[in-house]
Amino acid sequence: MKRAMILLSILCVSIGLYGQNNWRRQSRVETRTINSKVLNADRDYNIFIPLSYDQEPNRKYPILYLLHGVMDTNLGWFERGRVKDVMDQLVASGEAHEMIIVTPNAGGNISEGAWNGYFDMPGWKYETFFFTELIPHIESTFRVIGNKENRAIAGLSMGGGGATVYGQKYPELFSSVYAMSALMSIPQQGAMQSQNPDDKMAILNKSVQDNCAIGFIKNSNEEQVNKLRSVNWFVDCGDDDFILDRNIEFNQAMREKGIRHEFRVRDGGHTWEYWHAALYTCLPYVSRNFKMNK
Amino acid sequence: MKRAMILLSILCVSIGLYGQNNWRRQSRVETRTINSKVLNADRDYNIFIPLSYDQEPNRKYPILYLLHGVMDTNLGWFERGRVKDVMDQLVASGEAHEMIIVTPNAGGNISEGAWNGYFDMPGWKYETFFFTELIPHIESTFRVIGNKENRAIAGLSMGGGGATVYGQKYPELFSSVYAMSALMSIPQQGAMQSQNPDDKMAILNKSVQDNCAIGFIKNSNEEQVNKLRSVNWFVDCGDDDFILDRNIEFNQAMREKGIRHEFRVRDGGHTWEYWHAALYTCLPYVSRNFKMNK
Amino acid sequence: MKRAMILLSILCVSIGLYGQNNWRRQSRVETRTINSKVLNADRDYNIFIPLSYDQEPNRKYPILYLLHGVMDTNLGWFERGRVKDVMDQLVASGEAHEMIIVTPNAGGNISEGAWNGYFDMPGWKYETFFFTELIPHIESTFRVIGNKENRAIAGLSMGGGGATVYGQKYPELFSSVYAMSALMSIPQQGAMQSQNPDDKMAILNKSVQDNCAIGFIKNSNEEQVNKLRSVNWFVDCGDDDFILDRNIEFNQAMREKGIRHEFRVRDGGHTWEYWHAALYTCLPYVSRNFKMNK
Amino acid sequence: MKRAMILLSILCVSIGLYGQNNWRRQSRVETRTINSKVLNADRDYNIFIPLSYDQEPNRKYPILYLLHGVMDTNLGWFERGRVKDVMDQLVASGEAHEMIIVTPNAGGNISEGAWNGYFDMPGWKYETFFFTELIPHIESTFRVIGNKENRAIAGLSMGGGGATVYGQKYPELFSSVYAMSALMSIPQQGAMQSQNPDDKMAILNKSVQDNCAIGFIKNSNEEQVNKLRSVNWFVDCGDDDFILDRNIEFNQAMREKGIRHEFRVRDGGHTWEYWHAALYTCLPYVSRNFKMNK
Repeated sequence: MKRAMILLSILCVSIGLYGQNNWRRQSRVETRTINSKVLNADRDYNIFIPLSYDQEPNRKYPILYLLHGVMDTNLGWFERGRVKDVMDQLVASGEAHEMIIVTPNAGGNISEGAWNGYFDMPGWKYETFFFTELIPHIESTFRVIGNKENRAIAGLSMGGGGATVYGQKYPELFSSVYAMSALMSIPQQGAMQSQNPDDKMAILNKSVQDNCAIGFIKNSNEEQVNKLRSVNWFVDCGDDDFILDRNIEFNQAMREKGIRHEFRVRDGGHTWEYWHAALYTCLPYVSRNFKMNK
Repeated sequence: MKRAMILLSILCVSIGLYGQNNWRRQSRVETRTINSKVLNADRDYNIFIPLSYDQEPNRKYPILYLLHGVMDTNLGWFERGRVKDVMDQLVASGEAHEMIIVTPNAGGNISEGAWNGYFDMPGWKYETFFFTELIPHIESTFRVIGNKENRAIAGLSMGGGGATVYGQKYPELFSSVYAMSALMSIPQQGAMQSQNPDDKMAILNKSVQDNCAIGFIKNSNEEQVNKLRSVNWFVDCGDDDFILDRNIEFNQAMREKGIRHEFRVRDGGHTWEYWHAALYTCLPYVSRNFKMNK
Repeated sequence: MKRAMILLSILCVSIGLYGQNNWRRQSRVETRTINSKVLNADRDYNIFIPLSYDQEPNRKYPILYLLHGVMDTNLGWFERGRVKDVMDQLVASGEAHEMIIVTPNAGGNISEGAWNGYFDMPGWKYETFFFTELIPHIESTFRVIGNKENRAIAGLSMGGGGATVYGQKYPELFSSVYAMSALMSIPQQGAMQSQNPDDKMAILNKSVQDNCAIGFIKNSNEEQVNKLRSVNWFVDCGDDDFILDRNIEFNQAMREKGIRHEFRVRDGGHTWEYWHAALYTCLPYVSRNFKMNK
Repeated sequence: MKRAMILLSILCVSIGLYGQNNWRRQSRVETRTINSKVLNADRDYNIFIPLSYDQEPNRKYPILYLLHGVMDTNLGWFERGRVKDVMDQLVASGEAHEMIIVTPNAGGNISEGAWNGYFDMPGWKYETFFFTELIPHIESTFRVIGNKENRAIAGLSMGGGGATVYGQKYPELFSSVYAMSALMSIPQQGAMQSQNPDDKMAILNKSVQDNCAIGFIKNSNEEQVNKLRSVNWFVDCGDDDFILDRNIEFNQAMREKGIRHEFRVRDGGHTWEYWHAALYTCLPYVSRNFKMNK
């Protein structure tokens, strides 16, 4: 009977209603805050700390920056994308390497006044913040290897565009870029017609147009193309996604320039189920491209 | 500009922060309550209503009963297992048929006094409730085809055991049984040794021992075996699940009796990530076994 | 010892070096010949007969026509695509229905004088043969259900284009069309410039240009579009395939007209490994779309 | 027209009827022979040479030894398992590292007098040959890294048992062992009852019984268990395979001893389709476990 009761207790813990499973070592997710001088604001981020982190106090880890979509925050990837669940499973089976994963906050509810976007825009220099404050902060606060070979970036929708353009502008920083349902561009419709070009949605909109991932490739000269070739690119977009054609254009531009990359059209739309499922490809992919000297 | 703004708005809705997407027809999930005379209590259930349900007012649907694990409730499969997301995607691609899915409540927090379990036990005749009240209520309240060919049952852990034993006792009612990480048995440890055999965990424990899915097969005579052969069985358990050996025993007992069934050991443990992923096999499997005259 | 020897013998048979496994019932593949008046020639075809065919002498089956690529013959799908192996596995697990599969011969070595292609061309009216002789012959010789709901067509490369155009011209005949790495069009390069417009490669080339699957959609009126909507379409092409852009154009034209279809870009090129792997999606897909009254 | 003709020509080459594609660099497969003093015979082997081998004359490669089943030869994995096709695709997408793959010949038609088996037996010391002649020959003839971290072994059926036992006896030599449908043991049926204990099937049978992979684990002491833990183990067997229970026993013995390993039961039987499909898991798995200093 006792053993049976223990079994049922394990089941209860597994179902996960008893909160944290303190009875065994686990990977964990923390919410932290960084004070940004560039943005003149506090910004939250979440960080996934792998299982072995505390057990191996001298070990350094590869890192993945994982970017959310418009109106979302640092919490989205963990709450709706369930990164920790997928990561734990893939590490257990050897499909993904242990790594640190950071989800910075580049958004929130615009109608409540939140800034959104990954690029520098009037009044909100997020890209500058990302490269001069966030990365240095993360990679000095946590045990991160900290070189191109062991740094990757990925994102969904607006964050997929952000990850792609970051990889284009800073190819010396990233080993892999994995873009999901990426906002590779927004069609430019002649002159500005917004009643209020100062509102944050219009500013975001313009920043995406100014940072068009497709135009970047088309305009790259041979030297830039060679740098782009040093990155492992993966473009992943659903067959029912309204943004599929922008990803097709990106794929075609990359082929036109002879930049090797993976391209997949899987089943689905612009949904969390698609992005959750994409993690099963993304995390092994960036893992394979890490080059650790263990 | 206007079109660009529309695009960003679509993105926002897709990210799902604006709650219900009222601007297009969708499948939906409702929480309902049934008053049970057998249990002398109200019991909640959730129901997935497919997209076409309101558009085709004369159409009847196949049905899947989906059972949760110990200490969980009717909400688990939708909140943590995300059945709706998976179902919408598989229906869109044609991999699953439109169907009604019901998650009854057979649990809750035992330490707060909740009864748990799918079998009849002293003071809580859940199995009687399920077959004499719940199924008739559901299949008369909603447009359900209502025959064996178009009725399936599935579940995880304690609910996987429940689904399996229900299929064994009522093979004339179910076309398919899909058991995930199923509690096929609990080892019997001599006489009862619990200090308090009346507590609900001990009662649940005994009810599972009395309804052992493995023993049922071993004790089946040829007539019962033939009835079991009329059901499509699928057993799915992770290689890191502590309950794997019970599922192996079940598989071996089924083979011993010559009862055809599918058996899979995939990568993973006793986790929601495993059960979520199992839906991608479960929902097409039960769909293929439905026999609709459309 | 004896049992051990039997085990080893089973292993030997399984490895398959002893030729036909006559000791148990199996599905089988036959090569047959049809004499065509239209073509004024004999044409071979291969046919996959499902396991239950001989055991259930009154049962009729759904059918899949599976088309090969240029320079290939009726043998390609079985020898290099290994349809029988995949079919046996998917039927055993319930992922595909038992069905009859026919691979007609529409090719051979052009430099040795063989005609190639699925369309009517001067001197070789293959399309006429296919619809007025082959289908009637097959569906009267074998136990085929013989209606739209239970007839599907699929193919690779030139045969993917053939399957698509057949589905476009005869939507009342096919439930599903599955196109792999399909030759959806050949770019027209002004006037004919070939030295010898009478050679069979030039004739084939012109027949594909005259039967452009993309143009067909663009030129369809509302009535034709409605007929196209009665077919289940699946377009599948590798990200390293040189013909990817033609499949993208097809996908875009279908979306433009609002014709629902599945579109996938998987990993790979214009290779047998891709087509072999495609069977794992194709055979369940056409199965799900069959509507048998069993 | 010219461009169209070129397109059709490419299609023809892709379909592969024109033999070797000499017009572009490719990976390749060679058949070679080694003269063995231990066996007093010539033995063939096949070797897969990766694409970059000739282009990078100073680069060394990890290696995989891939073992065939009873009555088969060095050709089986390439002809029926199509290793080259799978390898080319997985390398192109980054899922597998470039590596050398060797399939030695440990079999042939017993009724025509061929010896079969991977162990030392009276008159045929294959295991001795493998470790004292074959490995040294291969790893000095070709550019192989040649350490444990970059050496893996895999096999099917009799070769799955061979790979497992080789990994058990020489854990210092292999980074990964991947066993497919493995002959982990043959039940011992009391005393020898064969009429002719000298025939090669009886000798093979006894050699497998004497090299039981399950017994090896059960009999391992703590020191041996620690060595076994230095290897990455993967056990993969179909749910319709008659040898499934032996693989379950192996999995249970490994768990009993606390030796971490992956275990999968996929859909299928003792067939080439199962082993072909297993390559998609096997090749990425051994790749991830290689530790190259690039």
